[in-house]
Amino acid sequence: MLRLYDNKESRNGYKVVLLLNHLKTPFERVEIDIFKGGSRTPEYLAKNPVGKIPALELEDGTILSESGAILFYLAEGTPYLPDDRVGRAQVLRWICFEQNVHETNVAESRFILNHPELSKGREGEILAEKQKRGNAAIKLMDDHLASHDFFAAGRYTIADVALYGYTSVAADGGFDLSKFPAVQAWMMRIEAQPGYVAANAG
Amino acid sequence: MLRLYDNKESRNGYKVVLLLNHLKTPFERVEIDIFKGGSRTPEYLAKNPVGKIPALELEDGTILSESGAILFYLAEGTPYLPDDRVGRAQVLRWICFEQNVHETNVAESRFILNHPELSKGREGEILAEKQKRGNAAIKLMDDHLASHDFFAAGRYTIADVALYGYTSVAADGGFDLSKFPAVQAWMMRIEAQPGYVAANAG
Repeated sequence: MLRLYDNKESRNGYKVVLLLNHLKTPFERVEIDIFKGGSRTPEYLAKNPVGKIPALELEDGTILSESGAILFYLAEGTPYLPDDRVGRAQVLRWICFEQNVHETNVAESRFILNHPELSKGREGEILAEKQKRGNAAIKLMDDHLASHDFFAAGRYTIADVALYGYTSVAADGGFDLSKFPAVQAWMMRIEAQPGYVAANAG
Repeated sequence: MLRLYDNKESRNGYKVVLLLNHLKTPFERVEIDIFKGGSRTPEYLAKNPVGKIPALELEDGTILSESGAILFYLAEGTPYLPDDRVGRAQVLRWICFEQNVHETNVAESRFILNHPELSKGREGEILAEKQKRGNAAIKLMDDHLASHDFFAAGRYTIADVALYGYTSVAADGGFDLSKFPAVQAWMMRIEAQPGYVAANAG
């Protein structure tokens, strides 16, 4: 059985949990206490030298890391990833966008506000830049969604799963989603998908 | 013919140029003056709403954006991307790492130092954090390369192309590569690959 190393606060981990639920793929979830060094132990680093969660352990012991790469692996051959080259590139465009300008600003703003004790010196200029850039990233999503139901391939794919992860908790980072109505409507479309689960459910 | 919208200072664009040269794929390169608003004109935004370079225009007019997605598109079916699912996931792991913690810190440090006139207020805490995190990213690469010739699949792939882009100009961002001997040896292996071109060559 697949084994997912995860932390309940992480939305990078939740992206993988959400896709596994859509796919009805059974998996074992192992909670790693990243706030008490659980991802920096010698045992964990031997599995995943990046020292982060999520990490997916395959049945032969192979470890996959980085949420975007894990989503791609799980989605190959399923409706959540297009079969054609251009479609895959359009999905990856949004996964790269999420990793480059969304997660680094929206998720990081949430981290700074949720964990002030771990963010000393970051609550000033650094948070202000991340909130400004995070708002620009969500605005770009809103503009795209004004004329598209989903991000790529005309249907719900892992591009949406990747972007839903932290957009759905953007309020924790100080972002006001009421300014982005197309994003709000898109989140409701995702929450109506077969197999959808909220984070930390059950 | 493929058309690449690019800027000569961008290493995100250079990654694509490098792969196209390895593949011996002819292309037309269009210089976009991103420092004079060339990526924000109505004409350019109609092609690529993200307003960034690089963007690859296919022969049917389809636009691909985000360097990681463009590399993946071009590499499918070539030796620069593995045929197997696990191999592709391992390549994407490093492409996601590059977009998430390398480009955002190493490339951004270079931008702040190269363009102080466009980086007012970023030269203090923001630059310091990016240099600290950029060094950690390069250290992680060095640790991996201490026991691997390349990042994934046991051979030169687009994972290496993606990471070479900004690592090879990390000195511009204040990073001292002499501290990372495995990274230096890896760059020499890349520079010996068939079809290798330096940035802005020719």
